[in-house]
Amino acid sequence: MDDAKMKRLSEIGKNTIAEALGMELTDLQEGVVKGKLPVDSRTHQPYGLLHGGASVVLAETLGSVGSHFLVADQGKGAVGVEVNANHVKGVRDGWVHGTATLAHKGGRIHVWNIDIRNDDGDLVCTSRLTVMIVPNRG
Amino acid sequence: MDDAKMKRLSEIGKNTIAEALGMELTDLQEGVVKGKLPVDSRTHQPYGLLHGGASVVLAETLGSVGSHFLVADQGKGAVGVEVNANHVKGVRDGWVHGTATLAHKGGRIHVWNIDIRNDDGDLVCTSRLTVMIVPNRG
Amino acid sequence: MDDAKMKRLSEIGKNTIAEALGMELTDLQEGVVKGKLPVDSRTHQPYGLLHGGASVVLAETLGSVGSHFLVADQGKGAVGVEVNANHVKGVRDGWVHGTATLAHKGGRIHVWNIDIRNDDGDLVCTSRLTVMIVPNRG
Amino acid sequence: MDDAKMKRLSEIGKNTIAEALGMELTDLQEGVVKGKLPVDSRTHQPYGLLHGGASVVLAETLGSVGSHFLVADQGKGAVGVEVNANHVKGVRDGWVHGTATLAHKGGRIHVWNIDIRNDDGDLVCTSRLTVMIVPNRG
Repeated sequence: MDDAKMKRLSEIGKNTIAEALGMELTDLQEGVVKGKLPVDSRTHQPYGLLHGGASVVLAETLGSVGSHFLVADQGKGAVGVEVNANHVKGVRDGWVHGTATLAHKGGRIHVWNIDIRNDDGDLVCTSRLTVMIVPNRG
Repeated sequence: MDDAKMKRLSEIGKNTIAEALGMELTDLQEGVVKGKLPVDSRTHQPYGLLHGGASVVLAETLGSVGSHFLVADQGKGAVGVEVNANHVKGVRDGWVHGTATLAHKGGRIHVWNIDIRNDDGDLVCTSRLTVMIVPNRG
Repeated sequence: MDDAKMKRLSEIGKNTIAEALGMELTDLQEGVVKGKLPVDSRTHQPYGLLHGGASVVLAETLGSVGSHFLVADQGKGAVGVEVNANHVKGVRDGWVHGTATLAHKGGRIHVWNIDIRNDDGDLVCTSRLTVMIVPNRG
Repeated sequence: MDDAKMKRLSEIGKNTIAEALGMELTDLQEGVVKGKLPVDSRTHQPYGLLHGGASVVLAETLGSVGSHFLVADQGKGAVGVEVNANHVKGVRDGWVHGTATLAHKGGRIHVWNIDIRNDDGDLVCTSRLTVMIVPNRG
């Protein structure tokens, strides 16, 4: 990732849900985006476990950022259309680490697979995001 | 909703993602749960629109709370297994209002439909949550 | 439904999976499409129950037909992008009856909810289909 | 795959939707199941393309067979709870080839990823299946 992109990444989350939850983007390649989310009071559900919705925030952020960076140079926008996720393991603390991988890059649709793992590398959540590419954000 | 349940509702979200995002639960009936989420810097994505993941946090919270209240008296727990959502309309400010309706109440599985609307009543997100009922939280 | 549309409906399924499985379309309104599927050796899984995938064939057919009829007059096409379904009840014989209802009608995306019930009216499957509207089938 | 399992595989699809559509199971390993489906009048939609629901029949079959073989020795059953799929490429003829890979093997839940490709190896559909493990089929 070049410096310009890293700088944009570090600023893109200001005043967003990413900041409210303490999310950090850690890598951006063409078709692969990584980030992490702290498991603490900002992301817990009432039983002190990571809220499933927090995993989806991470998953949807990674895929959306990945699509934006793929099409922004062409003046196009990327809109999240559908997201789904299986929650397979509870997490109480530490961080969860997400990796979004582009499964399909079409002219109108991108599909991302996002796996989220705990600090030990165990799968916590597996998610898929459908992004529609539009002529512009307007 | 009786007073005891309302009191539990108001406390259940302390120190959780619900508090971090400003979510409020507003009604709890058997098989119908309602709540709302502010659309502001805590729930925005970088373009100043409601983050799709924020909608999923609301959807998953409503369905999970609904299942917990249905089975807690029997000493059972409710675990979110799968969630999916279509994002159909952008929202810049105000609140979004979610209603979770129990579509299927089985011995092992609950399925919830959750619709989220903006202040004008337009559909913003439609979601479905699969909850597994387990013998206990332990 | 006028006669011309009914005639198209009865012919549209020739030499398709709909014919292989014995599916019948029974009603087509703007935003509401109904059809049914026999539960027999053509739609069973190995245990003699309705195969979950058969439910999805019915669900996806109903929503797709509904979108095609909404946009065909404008020379546009409809492409199924994502489908999901919860299977909530087993069925051994008789018919299952599906109703697709348009949840969102956008310029680029249609979202359909499809509920499938057995002959007694019990919910068997609840599904959601995302359809992308494209300039033409070409 | 030993001979006994292969024999069961070849018989398991008799008088089912798998037979109606011409599906063939081609490999069964622990956590990996493969099969293929012909793209012809039995699996087409009205425009002569593979019906999205046909892909889901293949996906759900592969994952379900995989879970059954993992738990049948323990006298347990496997019930498909939720399935979802993205359709990313049209196919007119030939075969489509599916591979189901076990993403999560829990005591109560299995999650399968299923990718379906055309004869050229291009991704046609990517799907995820949630299976619930139950004490017995009874």
